[in-house]
Order: sequence, then C-alpha cells, then structure tokens
Amino acid sequence: MDQSYALFTDFYQLTMAYGYWKRGLSQQRACFVHFFRKKPFGGEVAVCAGLETLVQFIESFRFSDDDIAYLKTIQGVNKKPFFEPAFLDYLREFRFDLDLFAVPEGTPVSAYQPMIRVEGPIIAAQLIESPLLNIINFQTLIATKGSRVSWVAGESEVIEFGLRRAQGYDGALSATRASFIGGCQSTSNVMAGKRFDIPVRGTHAHSWIMTHDTEEEAFVAYNSLSHGSGYFLIDTYDSIGAVKNLIRLAQEDPQFKLKGVRLDSGDLAVLSIEIRRLLDEAGFKDAQIMASNELDEYLIRDIKQQKAPIDVFGVGTQLVTGGDQSALDGVYKMSAFMRNEGEWALKIKLSEQIEKMTTPGRLQTRRYMKGGVNLFDLIYDEDLGVDESLEMIDQFDITSTRKIPKGAEFIDLLVPILQDGKRVYELPSLKSIQGRGIEMMGHYPENTRRLYNPNKYWTYHEKRLLERKLALIKEMKQNVEKGSNHR
Amino acid sequence: MDQSYALFTDFYQLTMAYGYWKRGLSQQRACFVHFFRKKPFGGEVAVCAGLETLVQFIESFRFSDDDIAYLKTIQGVNKKPFFEPAFLDYLREFRFDLDLFAVPEGTPVSAYQPMIRVEGPIIAAQLIESPLLNIINFQTLIATKGSRVSWVAGESEVIEFGLRRAQGYDGALSATRASFIGGCQSTSNVMAGKRFDIPVRGTHAHSWIMTHDTEEEAFVAYNSLSHGSGYFLIDTYDSIGAVKNLIRLAQEDPQFKLKGVRLDSGDLAVLSIEIRRLLDEAGFKDAQIMASNELDEYLIRDIKQQKAPIDVFGVGTQLVTGGDQSALDGVYKMSAFMRNEGEWALKIKLSEQIEKMTTPGRLQTRRYMKGGVNLFDLIYDEDLGVDESLEMIDQFDITSTRKIPKGAEFIDLLVPILQDGKRVYELPSLKSIQGRGIEMMGHYPENTRRLYNPNKYWTYHEKRLLERKLALIKEMKQNVEKGSNHR
Repeated sequence: MDQSYALFTDFYQLTMAYGYWKRGLSQQRACFVHFFRKKPFGGEVAVCAGLETLVQFIESFRFSDDDIAYLKTIQGVNKKPFFEPAFLDYLREFRFDLDLFAVPEGTPVSAYQPMIRVEGPIIAAQLIESPLLNIINFQTLIATKGSRVSWVAGESEVIEFGLRRAQGYDGALSATRASFIGGCQSTSNVMAGKRFDIPVRGTHAHSWIMTHDTEEEAFVAYNSLSHGSGYFLIDTYDSIGAVKNLIRLAQEDPQFKLKGVRLDSGDLAVLSIEIRRLLDEAGFKDAQIMASNELDEYLIRDIKQQKAPIDVFGVGTQLVTGGDQSALDGVYKMSAFMRNEGEWALKIKLSEQIEKMTTPGRLQTRRYMKGGVNLFDLIYDEDLGVDESLEMIDQFDITSTRKIPKGAEFIDLLVPILQDGKRVYELPSLKSIQGRGIEMMGHYPENTRRLYNPNKYWTYHEKRLLERKLALIKEMKQNVEKGSNHR
Repeated sequence: MDQSYALFTDFYQLTMAYGYWKRGLSQQRACFVHFFRKKPFGGEVAVCAGLETLVQFIESFRFSDDDIAYLKTIQGVNKKPFFEPAFLDYLREFRFDLDLFAVPEGTPVSAYQPMIRVEGPIIAAQLIESPLLNIINFQTLIATKGSRVSWVAGESEVIEFGLRRAQGYDGALSATRASFIGGCQSTSNVMAGKRFDIPVRGTHAHSWIMTHDTEEEAFVAYNSLSHGSGYFLIDTYDSIGAVKNLIRLAQEDPQFKLKGVRLDSGDLAVLSIEIRRLLDEAGFKDAQIMASNELDEYLIRDIKQQKAPIDVFGVGTQLVTGGDQSALDGVYKMSAFMRNEGEWALKIKLSEQIEKMTTPGRLQTRRYMKGGVNLFDLIYDEDLGVDESLEMIDQFDITSTRKIPKGAEFIDLLVPILQDGKRVYELPSLKSIQGRGIEMMGHYPENTRRLYNPNKYWTYHEKRLLERKLALIKEMKQNVEKGSNHR
C-alpha cells in the first residue's frame, strides 16, 4: 500500500480546490454537515464510528512528491496539463486547518442528525469530504450491525470472523474495529488484533482434520499443541460422532482439554441442544459450544428463541459487509458559507424531494432524557440556540410537535475535536468507546430497539431553525420561477 | 497503513501452521481449490479478478519484527505464550514456495469451477487461504458487477464514482480496479487513477454552485479554469433552468465551452430527453449528458429502454459494494494431500447438503466452443485427464449428460502462475485484461447473459471424476456409520 493517502479523494475535489485557489477564495470559510438519511438495517439508530481513523487521516495528511508528479500528468480537455505548477506547490504545503466537531464514537444517533460538522477554509472543508464519507459511512454501518448482533446475542460472546469475505484489506480491518465498537468481543483477524488491541481467537479448520488419517488423530494432535485453545471443530464428517469421540478422548486422558466445540454447519439449534446434553451428561458442563455459518442478528435471535445453548457466536460476512445493506447513505452538505468576514450566509440545495433539502446552519443535536431514559433529540443551530418556550417540530411532518417537558436533562452530542487543525480532544480507547456505546444504547426505550419495525424515536427541529429553513426554500423557489438560480 | 501484511489472516491459520511445524509436517504437500457456489447477482458467470493483487501480496510477504513481537504477546488458555520462540524464528524466514494455477483475470467462470488451484507445502498452502479469499472474492464480485453495468450501458461510457460509499480505503481502491476489469472506462478516485493507470474524471459539486452568488456566476467561474473539463452540474436548484442558462452563456461567449452537463437527481429519463432537445435545438449536438444517482444495471437498462439520450453514466454505491449482494461466497477447500512422496490422497468434506461436498482432485476446467460460441464447460482432474468417449455429467443432476460434439475446440482455463513461489506468468496490463474479458463474454450465447434468470450455462464433470467422488462419499458415510470419522 502507498504511504500517502492524499490522493484518496474524488477528482472533483481537486478541480474545485484549484478553482477556489485560482479565484483567491481559498481562505473563505464554509460550514459542512455530515449526516445520513436512510436508517441502517431499519433500526432507529446508528452507532457512530470512524472518528479516530478520520483524525489520523487528517493528522498524517501530506501530498507526497509522487502524488504531485502524478497530478502533473493529468490533462484537461485541451490535452494540456490540467493544474498549473503554482497550484501544485500550494498543495505540497497544504494542511487541514479545520475546526471539526463530531459525535464521539460509540454514540447512537438517528437519521438527519449531524454526526460531524466541519468549519474552515473552503478548500480544506472540501478536500476532507471524500475520505470523511468513506471512513465514517462504512465504520458507522458496521458498528451499527455489530451493535444489533451483540444485542441479540445477549450473554453469549460474539467473535468477528469476516476477513475472508470482507471488501478488501481495509474492508476487513476497519470492519473489525467497528464491530468491536458495536459490542463484539474478539476477532479472527490477527492484523486487526495487533493494530487495535482486540483479542484474537481461532481454532483449526476442516483441512487440519483432513490432513490426518482419522479425525481422532487430528483432535489428539491439536490438543498436543502445548497451549492449544482447546476448541475443536466438529463438523468435518459428522458433528455428533465427533463430540462423542472428544468426550471419550477427554475421559481417557486428563491431558486432553475439552474447553469447547465449534459447529460450522447443519441446524445449529438442533445440534447444539443435543451436543449440550451429551457434554453435560459426561460431566463437561463447562465445555462451551461455539457456532458459526452465515449468521446475522435475525438468525441468532431465532436460534436463541429455540433455546439453543450456544455460548459463542462466530459472525462473518453479514457483519463485516452489512449483508444486503452494504452502505450507509451518509452525505456531507454545505450548510453555510462566509461571504464576508464573520457573517455566515445560509446554504441549501433545492430538490423535488423534501427529504433531500438540507437544513442550513451550524447544526448541533441536543438529546433530552428523564430518569435515565432518552425522550427525544432536537436539532438546533449553535448561533440561534434553543428557545425552550417554543414547541419542537418534526421537519417532515409539521403536525408533530412537542414541548420540552419540565425537569428534562440534556446533553449536546457534537463536541470539538479539532480547532484550526489542532486536536483538542483526547481519543478514547476502543474498549471505553465500546462501553460508552453499550451504555448509551441502554437509555433508549426498549421498543425503539426492536430489530424490525421499531417504535419511532423522534428527532425534532428547533422551531426557529425549521421556520428559517422553510422561508429560505420558499424564497429560492420563487427565484427559480423568475429564471434565476441562486441562493 | 502498516507496511507488513503478513498478519492479514485468520488466527487459526497460525495455530494450524504451528501445529504442522511442531509435528514436522510443514513440508507435506497439499492441494487446495478456490471456487464459488452462489452465482453473483443471479448471473451465469462471474468475471475473475484480483490475481495481480494476490501475486503482489505473495511476492512481498514477510513477517516483520513488529509482527513477530506481537505474536509473542499472544497467550494460550494457560496464560503462557501461545507460540514457542523457534516457531516464530521459522515464521521470520517464511516464504511462499507454492505452485499456483489460476484462471487469468477478466475471464468469465461459472459456479463450482476452480478459479485458483494451489499446490505446495501445507503451511504455505494454508497461510495463503485468508488473504486469497479476501482479495479474489471481493475483486471478482465487483468485476462481475462492473461487467453487468457496462454491458447494459452499451455504447454509453461508465465512470466509477463509488469512493464515498465504499467499504474502507481498499474497498474503494480495489473496487475501482475490478470495475475497470469488468468494463468501466474511468473513475473519480484519484489514488486508483495513479496506482492503476485508470483515467480519472470529475466536474464540480453542488457546493461549488452554492459558494457563488448565482449559479450563472459559478458556471462562468468554473469555465474560466483555463482547461476545465467543460461539464457542468445542473441540478443544484433547477436542472432545466440551468441548461437554458448554460446555452445562453455558451451562445454569448465563444470562450464558454459547453462540453456537457451532469444530472444528479430527478427523473433521469424525462430530464435527459428534454435536455437533449434543448441542446440540439441550440446547436450543441456534441454536448454530452452525464447522469448519476443510485444507478445499477437494472435502472440503466430501464432508462435506456425509455430512450434516454445519456452518454455517460456515473455509477457509485451499487457498483463498488455489490449493493444487496455484498460478498462472493468463494471458498478454498483441500482437495488432495500428499501423505507419501509423489502420491496424492483424495480429500473431501462431508456435509448434509450435497452442494457443500467438494470434488476431490487436482481440478482444471476445460471450455468447449464451436464457431466462436461457448458450448459448455467441463471440470476434470489433471491426473485423470478427459476421456472424450464418455458422457459428461452434471454433478448435482446425474440425469443431465452430454457427449462432446465432434469438431469442438477447447481451452483449459487454469494456467500456471507461480512455480515453487517463482512467477512463471507475465501479468498483463489492466487494459488488456479488460479487453480479454469483454471479448470472452461475447462468446456466450446471448440468452445466458440475461440480467435476471438467464438460460443455464452448463458445467459438467468428467465422468470418471464424478464417479470417483461419489464412491468416496459412499465409503466415508459408511465409515461414519461405523463410528469412525475419517477419510
């Protein structure tokens, strides 16, 4: 892999940067907001992840000589170099002098809430867009999946097993990180274990059995690895037969440690119940049953409902790719632009679809709670603040309103991460991110956590913020009718 | 990113390697076969991709001092170091001394056909499993998607736009590479452009428009970038109004180059027809229409059917993640093991599901053709060869048989890539891989290429190979009944 990731961006970010630089606008400040629209996996919340990776990206950002040499080779439509040399010199010195506000990793958020707000010189705010979306969208998707899987697994441990079906090296590595944030406890991915200090787990494959003359011989050999994990894969030929053999081996030889068995095919519920019975009857009450095979949160829930005594779930493909929902639709939209020093001009993109019209302003989310239970969230503008005497309004259904109840507590979700490119936030350990996330998930009403079709968790708009947005849309639509496209 | 990727593996590969090493079996030879079972996107074929990446992985493979130091910290169940120091010294010197046979990139293959066959010392054959699956499964998935998208786009160009929704850095980079293999012509991903010599494309974003007082001003400014691409994004406020303004600007000023417009929302068919009419009437017959917005092969097909005059499609999320099919279910199974020098013992994994029982042997695929049209494919064993006097048989439906027609030509799909770890194959350029792939796809009967529910393309088994497999399964099942799990 390359050392420099500065070119990890969409080409239009560079053409626009060139344009701003050429027009002398490179220091003009802009405000962008990152949020998602479509609820991942149909749940009410997503678990934020990827911030540390993004901060590392920003802090190590440099255009290498190699990058600059490549950019020199790019041609415009007239077959001449696209970028002029002075701009490439500018890029060589470029650093991210941004203010960045973000919802800390592990925090659950809902659709349309700002997850990240970036304020700073337009070129920097624009150049961070593509990598920010790549990093945050994916890790948030997988942390959310990991949270769902771990939640239904309950007391059972979840191991992330997805390396072989993940989307590329980093599809595996950052998925392991995100799965752990969501609540998974270990991984099979050794490199992720090293890089993120996540416990690694693993036993042996079917091929280990097949390279020995008999399965028994393979079990004995595996046990003889002086400090073997003591988990045996049992479904190479016949799972029940293998368990019976393992029990006999452990009964005959005190050196044979039967810590657990792993099932990787067949009906996991039926087999695990039978295996538990065999192990218990033989006195191996502490021997664990580990199961894997195309698991996801729905299958784990169903298996648990059938009282399958599975202690450890190995979850792979569905966890690390998101299965049939392979992307979070996170977007990064300009919400204000500073034309004159110190004065933000509000910005909005028109659309035929109401959901696609962004809320302008320097957005923040306030979460209201009472007695340890989340009540609802409120999007407001940092400059307008919150007028608690007014009713809060849903932005797509203005008939849904709510007063802030007396005695409600609140927290603001976005916190400062970078100021002028310098970090003002201490990055927490992965373990504490995980803990914070699980704790915060526990504050939602149980019925909003259902896997499928959960009860709605409301995100209102502060009244003045919404009124301002609607007035702006009206004004712009009138402009369009008059043949003038602007805001 | 780390420099060393040696730990990019599942932990059990290392525990098994340790086991083989400890038992003195590290030089025992094994044969593994990589293939997939579930047809990606419901099509009859997948487009092989990832081989060059795999070869680079193998050729640069080293356990770094850092990797070894990490492995030292891993503990067994008894809290003592899992691996003994002499094994870590062995790893430090470890290189992949494998024979590797593969279907060249760009080649279409069907389910159950060997895509890669690995023969070599068991530790090496095992250690390559996880990265091989990660690299080949993902790139093949995306090359296949890219092939479908490019095929329906026909004469229209396809740009890969997926960086922002891809699964991590490498989910984006290797997806760009694979999309190009499948037939896409360019990308927005600058780093992929640099690394793989793929043309990069891009215009400007909505934010470019929003930082100017009016859309017109933004268009003029974008045009003034001395060698601008000349494509303008038109849907920030009102697409039709923007096109009218662009036409007027280009008519008034010969320096204003209207090379094309980009639509990113609304009904792409309705709008593109109207925009084409406006451009043509104003004399801009060469100005192109580029369209994007959650496109996939089905939407492109429908839009084309409605005669939308779209010259360039920008395809993102669905292309680079596979959309609702986010993984190829490729597996890597041991098919033979050399117990005694020079003698392969056949290996098979039993299962309750017939599709999960692998075919043992040193597998190869032969493709039969006549008059430039593929007839069917045949899986055979390199050591058994093909007896053309016998009927070929479908492995899951033994009533489906076929004789090899007189005068049929054939090619064998797997070619030698590495011998004893040394490369014996010249890696082709990406452009020639793409060309080969498109050409080979053209040899399938048209009805086997339908997007949905295509006509079956047959892959038979050589008669003796299948009979040998069935006899082996019978023998093993008898062993299981007698309480002995082995082959």
